[in-house]
Amino acid sequence: MTTFDTDLLPSGQDLATAKAEAAHAYELDRKHVFHSWSAQAQITPMTIVASDGQYVWDGNGNKLLDFSGQLVFTNIGHQHPTVVKAIAEQAAKLCTVAPQHVNAARSEAARLIAERTPGDLNRVFFTNGGADAVEHAVRMARLHTGRYKVLSRYRSYHGGTDTAVNLTGDPRRYPNDYASSGVVHFNGPFLYRSSFYAENEQQESERALEYLERLIQHEGASTFAAIILESVPGTAGIMVPPPGYMAGVREICNKYGIVMIADEVMAGFGRTGKWFAIQHFDVVPDLITFAKGVTSGYVPLGGVAINDAIYSTFADRAYPGGLTYSGHPLACAAAVATLNVMEDEGMVANAARIGSEVLGPGLADLAARHPSVGEVRGLGVFQAIELVANPQTREPLAPYGSSSPAMNAVIAACKSGGLLPFANFNRIHAVPACNISDAEVAEGLKILDAALTVADGYVN
Amino acid sequence: MTTFDTDLLPSGQDLATAKAEAAHAYELDRKHVFHSWSAQAQITPMTIVASDGQYVWDGNGNKLLDFSGQLVFTNIGHQHPTVVKAIAEQAAKLCTVAPQHVNAARSEAARLIAERTPGDLNRVFFTNGGADAVEHAVRMARLHTGRYKVLSRYRSYHGGTDTAVNLTGDPRRYPNDYASSGVVHFNGPFLYRSSFYAENEQQESERALEYLERLIQHEGASTFAAIILESVPGTAGIMVPPPGYMAGVREICNKYGIVMIADEVMAGFGRTGKWFAIQHFDVVPDLITFAKGVTSGYVPLGGVAINDAIYSTFADRAYPGGLTYSGHPLACAAAVATLNVMEDEGMVANAARIGSEVLGPGLADLAARHPSVGEVRGLGVFQAIELVANPQTREPLAPYGSSSPAMNAVIAACKSGGLLPFANFNRIHAVPACNISDAEVAEGLKILDAALTVADGYVN
Repeated sequence: MTTFDTDLLPSGQDLATAKAEAAHAYELDRKHVFHSWSAQAQITPMTIVASDGQYVWDGNGNKLLDFSGQLVFTNIGHQHPTVVKAIAEQAAKLCTVAPQHVNAARSEAARLIAERTPGDLNRVFFTNGGADAVEHAVRMARLHTGRYKVLSRYRSYHGGTDTAVNLTGDPRRYPNDYASSGVVHFNGPFLYRSSFYAENEQQESERALEYLERLIQHEGASTFAAIILESVPGTAGIMVPPPGYMAGVREICNKYGIVMIADEVMAGFGRTGKWFAIQHFDVVPDLITFAKGVTSGYVPLGGVAINDAIYSTFADRAYPGGLTYSGHPLACAAAVATLNVMEDEGMVANAARIGSEVLGPGLADLAARHPSVGEVRGLGVFQAIELVANPQTREPLAPYGSSSPAMNAVIAACKSGGLLPFANFNRIHAVPACNISDAEVAEGLKILDAALTVADGYVN
Repeated sequence: MTTFDTDLLPSGQDLATAKAEAAHAYELDRKHVFHSWSAQAQITPMTIVASDGQYVWDGNGNKLLDFSGQLVFTNIGHQHPTVVKAIAEQAAKLCTVAPQHVNAARSEAARLIAERTPGDLNRVFFTNGGADAVEHAVRMARLHTGRYKVLSRYRSYHGGTDTAVNLTGDPRRYPNDYASSGVVHFNGPFLYRSSFYAENEQQESERALEYLERLIQHEGASTFAAIILESVPGTAGIMVPPPGYMAGVREICNKYGIVMIADEVMAGFGRTGKWFAIQHFDVVPDLITFAKGVTSGYVPLGGVAINDAIYSTFADRAYPGGLTYSGHPLACAAAVATLNVMEDEGMVANAARIGSEVLGPGLADLAARHPSVGEVRGLGVFQAIELVANPQTREPLAPYGSSSPAMNAVIAACKSGGLLPFANFNRIHAVPACNISDAEVAEGLKILDAALTVADGYVN
């Protein structure tokens, strides 16, 4: 770990002041801040005092290479000057208007997003984040079809509000599940831990589709409003769907009149090396939910991209949903600036190249050398390292839904090596910004290499 | 309607450029933006190109006195330079971090909010807006009590996501109601349209409490996790609870172990002339939900203030909820700046004074002179004008849940007079910023006077 040579943080703040501020911030945090997904008295959160490009600085002045994207959202890296400037300019011009009034920033953001979505997804309903995007997408599907139930896969995450967390196929749902949400969960394709006894991708894809269609028939095809799928599941493990799977889902949706919702909250806006992950599969969904990368998280924003058929349902009948900050000018100005710098600086292409030529091969090399690595997989700057205690049995290095001393040791090794990782259960995700350089990837791989040596010590 | 003398908007933009930009924004909006609560093809939304203090400018350069607070959230008026500057500074310093990491802006915002909440509401869980604040408050109550059902009043609004809109006691709930949300609605006190045949406030309060307690007994007291109430219902009509009512609700909650949630999304942060509206009633709720005024809407932010007992439930047991932008630095910096300028400039006291000495008496004078005004009521800069077609029968000027040609004419008269009103069903709300001046209130009252003459023409 290194600090800035001059003892000045990129914000211009000197380190001593930053440390004092961090200590005070930590004290107040423990007194007054209630944290997401946590037992409040049992956490000792890290403080972040500054960030720049691919790096963040903690409260002790340690500089960390950000391989987490925070929560996989800083797609353009930290403190991009063009976007920072656009936020300040919009704040000075017109900070806020109510959603019923037109404003230029929102109109332009909608245009830029609609231009990038596939097919006829020409309208955008803006929300504050991913969870409410998912809530509204499901509502649109329910009212469009006149049906209630929704299909969602296990090993998925769709957000923290009630409907969204009940769609979620991971343990965060359990304490929120009162069996009233109308969600039916199913197993999706995941060859490394196949639910279908498949031996190759083609088999996995075919059997997963067969299973899905049988489930729909047993549950009653006419009862389903929608199927929601992360185009590439994110926190659940970055399992890229095998060839044919997403097209097969699209066919099933067509056959039974089910709305196909592609959840691109994490996978969208360049992360997989295309604007939207669904574009890897040449499939056009009916609705796309997005958030995170749309503004690189600089200002909270989410939304639903809507196709013409569903738009038509609400052309002359009121859509019964809304929110105070729908299409907030400051958030939309950040989106406009973000999408433009991504375009201008070729970040989506860079993410694709990094994935296939630098990060992907680098991770494959680590996998070949470390017995603790069961599998590496992903697209673009959206890559997972699946850690196992036993490469033969594929026993995970932490049980599903929890952590382990082994995983804690791996995460600690990343941090002490100067890398901020994204971790979930038995996995480390390498999810840096789309504009990361080859040298920075190499730096991260080197730290991961050392951390995986720690993991190897736990292999039995 | 007047335009800036120099033909320059407060943003420095010249009017001709602003008009061209507005026309383009409108065209893109109609092509690509999906609006809240609307039949998309049937709306012709107004464009806002600039704002300053108590005024906004539409796409034709018309200057309008903002008596709407947009959606009752610009509590410090438009483009307050101190807050605009704070947003730009935070953007330049540290735009975003993930919620699990500590940051100084979030810590300080939590401290300032906890300092202002009553009783032992010492912790703050930040959300993106009011709806998710409500979702999480209800979740906390459910897990704290181990119960599911929630009580909420008719004539209320609690947000647009599924659980929040099902708590809502107005027609926006109907298309979203699948009878799965566990909400039981009840009639609250509203003397002008009493559900209890009451003749005075004391009677209304006593009967409403008696009715509520009987309902709880019939439904099963042990089945209720929470009761949620806007401290002063907002969009539903600004019905200030009569003396004794909120204290009575608090007693009922204590008696049956029900969590009391005060929804202060609209009423909080100075609007009623106190930091929180519940402080008018000397009652300490268990949870307070907030949004809107906390940043004056400059950056999206909401949250839940949590008392010590509920915090303790999640001290050593993980709270199963969260969101990517919880405690977003930019939003929290806007909150810090907003709360500080409200304090420094005495805005809460100004809202109280305006309510009792200027706006309140002014509306009472209008009520005395216009037969179309059935009642005026409110606190601070949170005032409603209830319009009737018949003062004797109290027949509303638009049916519950809809509009009418008469109401449309009144709203049009406000706008053509140079005033942007907040309207709902048969009501006009006068909900300007907390820092409005006496002269600006007088200007608004004069325009309302003319608009109410239009309303009088519909009285039968």
